[in-house]
Amino acid sequence: MKDLRFGIIGWGYWGPKIARNLDSLPNGSLAMVCDMDERRLASIRINQPWVRTTTRPEDVFASDVDGVVIATPVRAHYQLAKAALLHGKHVLVEKPLTANIAEAEELVALAKELDRVLMVGHTFEYSPAVNELRKLVQSGDLGKIYCVEAERVNLGLFRNDINVIWDLAPHDVSILLYLFGKTPEQIKVQAHAHLQSRICDIAHLDLSFADGMAAHIHVSWLHPCKIRRVTVIGDARMVVYDDTNPAEMIKIYNKGADVHADPGVSYRYGAITIPHIDWMEPLRLECEDFAHCIRTGSLPRANGEVGLQVVRVLAAAQEALEAQSDKAYPVMVS
Amino acid sequence: MKDLRFGIIGWGYWGPKIARNLDSLPNGSLAMVCDMDERRLASIRINQPWVRTTTRPEDVFASDVDGVVIATPVRAHYQLAKAALLHGKHVLVEKPLTANIAEAEELVALAKELDRVLMVGHTFEYSPAVNELRKLVQSGDLGKIYCVEAERVNLGLFRNDINVIWDLAPHDVSILLYLFGKTPEQIKVQAHAHLQSRICDIAHLDLSFADGMAAHIHVSWLHPCKIRRVTVIGDARMVVYDDTNPAEMIKIYNKGADVHADPGVSYRYGAITIPHIDWMEPLRLECEDFAHCIRTGSLPRANGEVGLQVVRVLAAAQEALEAQSDKAYPVMVS
Amino acid sequence: MKDLRFGIIGWGYWGPKIARNLDSLPNGSLAMVCDMDERRLASIRINQPWVRTTTRPEDVFASDVDGVVIATPVRAHYQLAKAALLHGKHVLVEKPLTANIAEAEELVALAKELDRVLMVGHTFEYSPAVNELRKLVQSGDLGKIYCVEAERVNLGLFRNDINVIWDLAPHDVSILLYLFGKTPEQIKVQAHAHLQSRICDIAHLDLSFADGMAAHIHVSWLHPCKIRRVTVIGDARMVVYDDTNPAEMIKIYNKGADVHADPGVSYRYGAITIPHIDWMEPLRLECEDFAHCIRTGSLPRANGEVGLQVVRVLAAAQEALEAQSDKAYPVMVS
Amino acid sequence: MKDLRFGIIGWGYWGPKIARNLDSLPNGSLAMVCDMDERRLASIRINQPWVRTTTRPEDVFASDVDGVVIATPVRAHYQLAKAALLHGKHVLVEKPLTANIAEAEELVALAKELDRVLMVGHTFEYSPAVNELRKLVQSGDLGKIYCVEAERVNLGLFRNDINVIWDLAPHDVSILLYLFGKTPEQIKVQAHAHLQSRICDIAHLDLSFADGMAAHIHVSWLHPCKIRRVTVIGDARMVVYDDTNPAEMIKIYNKGADVHADPGVSYRYGAITIPHIDWMEPLRLECEDFAHCIRTGSLPRANGEVGLQVVRVLAAAQEALEAQSDKAYPVMVS
Repeated sequence: MKDLRFGIIGWGYWGPKIARNLDSLPNGSLAMVCDMDERRLASIRINQPWVRTTTRPEDVFASDVDGVVIATPVRAHYQLAKAALLHGKHVLVEKPLTANIAEAEELVALAKELDRVLMVGHTFEYSPAVNELRKLVQSGDLGKIYCVEAERVNLGLFRNDINVIWDLAPHDVSILLYLFGKTPEQIKVQAHAHLQSRICDIAHLDLSFADGMAAHIHVSWLHPCKIRRVTVIGDARMVVYDDTNPAEMIKIYNKGADVHADPGVSYRYGAITIPHIDWMEPLRLECEDFAHCIRTGSLPRANGEVGLQVVRVLAAAQEALEAQSDKAYPVMVS
Repeated sequence: MKDLRFGIIGWGYWGPKIARNLDSLPNGSLAMVCDMDERRLASIRINQPWVRTTTRPEDVFASDVDGVVIATPVRAHYQLAKAALLHGKHVLVEKPLTANIAEAEELVALAKELDRVLMVGHTFEYSPAVNELRKLVQSGDLGKIYCVEAERVNLGLFRNDINVIWDLAPHDVSILLYLFGKTPEQIKVQAHAHLQSRICDIAHLDLSFADGMAAHIHVSWLHPCKIRRVTVIGDARMVVYDDTNPAEMIKIYNKGADVHADPGVSYRYGAITIPHIDWMEPLRLECEDFAHCIRTGSLPRANGEVGLQVVRVLAAAQEALEAQSDKAYPVMVS
Repeated sequence: MKDLRFGIIGWGYWGPKIARNLDSLPNGSLAMVCDMDERRLASIRINQPWVRTTTRPEDVFASDVDGVVIATPVRAHYQLAKAALLHGKHVLVEKPLTANIAEAEELVALAKELDRVLMVGHTFEYSPAVNELRKLVQSGDLGKIYCVEAERVNLGLFRNDINVIWDLAPHDVSILLYLFGKTPEQIKVQAHAHLQSRICDIAHLDLSFADGMAAHIHVSWLHPCKIRRVTVIGDARMVVYDDTNPAEMIKIYNKGADVHADPGVSYRYGAITIPHIDWMEPLRLECEDFAHCIRTGSLPRANGEVGLQVVRVLAAAQEALEAQSDKAYPVMVS
Repeated sequence: MKDLRFGIIGWGYWGPKIARNLDSLPNGSLAMVCDMDERRLASIRINQPWVRTTTRPEDVFASDVDGVVIATPVRAHYQLAKAALLHGKHVLVEKPLTANIAEAEELVALAKELDRVLMVGHTFEYSPAVNELRKLVQSGDLGKIYCVEAERVNLGLFRNDINVIWDLAPHDVSILLYLFGKTPEQIKVQAHAHLQSRICDIAHLDLSFADGMAAHIHVSWLHPCKIRRVTVIGDARMVVYDDTNPAEMIKIYNKGADVHADPGVSYRYGAITIPHIDWMEPLRLECEDFAHCIRTGSLPRANGEVGLQVVRVLAAAQEALEAQSDKAYPVMVS
């Protein structure tokens, strides 16, 4: 007999994916789905008639489900997560946790007070490739880390409620925080709104850390190719993590440059190593962590505090974005 | 009998490459090589004993060569090019033309006054792939151009006389000017000096044009992979020019996104086309242009005025770089 | 209410995949699963308690299911398919249809006599990429087809009941028959058994057609890389179908060589085109075809007759394999 | 002062490449070029007026050159090489050494008798990548070698004097002999002549060695892509050598399959390693070896005996090709 019952609010792109994973857990089952659009629920009633459907979130809160997943547009995250916690539910919120810092802080405090699990859908923290990369970083084998270049671009999916920074950068920011365990001190932004006026679709974020490390994040909805790549550049080794290349996700380059007093810079060129990664679906691992923490009371990897840190970085980027117009330098014309 | 004689000043990385191309022209020959380091000239004396060698630039100016190539460090470009022009020589200067705007303006004016060819080594303007891309842009087939993303990164070669912007970005800026025939209005920079203090080795340039087009240039000496890619994003089609992939240098993506009043954004997905390019070595074509203009008095594609425009953009980037420190936004900590 | 009920015999690698697809059809549901290994059925009883499980195929035949899928080792195909047909069930058999020609002929005749659907799991005939390739071949745009090169290699999965020809080549043979609608006249084989004695793990098949077209099939369980590629070489154009590259599955090369009376051979080099393919899961389309044919009585694309043709080619290859030892030529030693 | 003087007979595709390399040796210079087509010599007279040109091979034999390179069609190799040796010249012959075994044997004997260098242009034996692969094979790290798969295909260059086996397979055969130091016992061929009647343009060679190792060679003039790949499959590790991928020429896969008594086959999956290779141009190294052996009297790596072994394998392949028609198996039709 399965002992954990889950409800999902929001049956768009992510909802069904999370549902399938929760339902296939050995000790979990999907019990309830809520979406404000009645038509989205029709196929559930045919294919899984034992799952209860509703258009009212209150029905989910009032039900006997143990955990609630919130997979709605971002602006609804805070209210729904708060209500779910107050009804004693454990909560998994899609990324980003909330639309601003104050809301995230409140949710984190509330979950702590009520002793409920609060988790955020930073799926990449559960990727075996990201965890391999984290081991490399933390082993010291890469040497001192100079900088990181992250790229996450594709054609679409354009959103009209949030800009590309809030849509895509949560992944890269959560990866950075997870890899290095430190928060950037300051952030600069170059961004443009090409397709929809006022909603930027291309952004370049520059993050500086206290110890001199830098990170650059390039996110875009307006690019012909799907690129999902993180390059970590250390003084001993460099690593490329390419999420679109299943056979060679992590590539370790044993190469670098060294500065000398007199003759200048010398170069080292060694082998490239591609470690074997035992692959498991990150979303599956995320769902397992949620179920595990509900049962044991332990803190999930992508817990509310982590979600709050990511929102803090996004909020600083948003502030930099809004102020960016007065920071450009003119090109002289003769 | 060959009718054009060339002298080269600077026998480092580029000098011998240009020399080989000039020497193999049907109507040109290498007559003289100058380098301040005597040891660099030894192999010429063995392999090509008929070529005159010297450590004094004045010897080149005083000789009977028709054209002089200046392939020295940037700081020497202005003085040497000026002296060569004043001695009646035609001049090809490696990129960037000069280290600042005033010097470039003076050289352009001088060449015009003396009716000599002044050319700059923007090799990529002679690349058949860049010219294919230019035809695509100018045909209108790409539609309205939203933006361009240019990337030019590799491990090294670090320089200690100029930063990575002056070293690598001249290529991308000259490509942009050549493709679109318009100058950016303003420029923003995110840059870092990781390896050598005060000489930035990674830079992200954001260029804005009067008509709303944007361009982003990423240059780096500190990257595990050699990437040389320009992506042009139009509202009708998108193109990737990858200089490191000889078999597929130009890839035209017939895809895009369209904004609608109500239902939001829709997507178009069509075929990818890789045009066949009749390849010729860009440096060879550049040398042919130099010889052709000397003989005919016509204006080379990469003429002094073009070199000056590029220096203007680089100078604005340098100004933005020096002022960048006060433009960052702090990340709030709880 | 769903109107078609399916039973599956064989719960190994393919069984669960087919089950998931049949179960998600709008008008179909999984009703019964049979496997001789009791332990394999345990997870079904937990996750899908409404699905009946059994270790006896007779229970499936005696049940009210409309269609039976046979996903067992090849040696059991004939007996199980025959029994299912005789119980009035429609039958989908995994590839290859049977282990020899006589069995396949009998099944085809029996299905016809009893007016039941007999289908074989040639999944690639349902691949949108293979169908795009077929359209190209049949449009005449490729010109006269000289030859085809098919490659299907990877590390494993080794089988000990059938050799690599019977395991992997059914896919390539079924693709060839589907693309060209003609059967090869004769076949030659080069094969080796490296890992398991007497079960060849690497094979090269050479197929000759009456009109001069040739086809080469390379199958292997002993290769470091996963390659699934079919190259069609016409005198006007050439096409590469690479099943492992989702973004560029079909690549049309507008190039070729022409023989002339005197000066020999000249070459044409044109553009490469990568058509956009609306992707759908082949296995899903196969399951839809099975359900559609059960309801309408029409003939499935991968019908029994097609399965028989493939078995005929495999049987000829097997005969060539067994006779190959006396066909080699010695290398002279001094 | 340069002490070795070279003459070249045959100024087609390879001649100028070899000439450039010999001429740039520190102790060598190009002295003479011979081609029966007067027009091919014109550019030499303009660009390198100090090099003597002629249309008569006898002029080269009668001159004071030390070494003669024979870069003519294959049918002329034997006569020219013999004459050169008899005039006391050291000789480098393009591959294949000769058109049959008897001619090769005679040249080898003659060079030995006259104490002259006889070398054949097996360029790939000088490739740093092939030598890296050879070190791997000989170190034992790959374990027992099961088999090798070699592929060398492209569109063209069609020849009308020899078939694709004699044109392209000399490279792969020489690589195999160099890697493993053993000669195959027997050989089977599948080949087709699509474009020119009677001159096969696609061939698959199957080589068997006394110890059970097998090798497959696929050569073709009729393929849309340029592929030059050798895959070595050992029971401990597998290696792919891809000559068209400069950044990843050698890829070592630490993976494999093991047979067990009962449970069947198990799989090992480990890291991929791409060693750094200090690249030098193989043709340059080949020319250095020729010059070195002339001066020291030592035996070149690609000496006449090696060339003879390759001709022996090609001759066996030719015999198998001519006999192949009676070895095919018919596909039964109902």
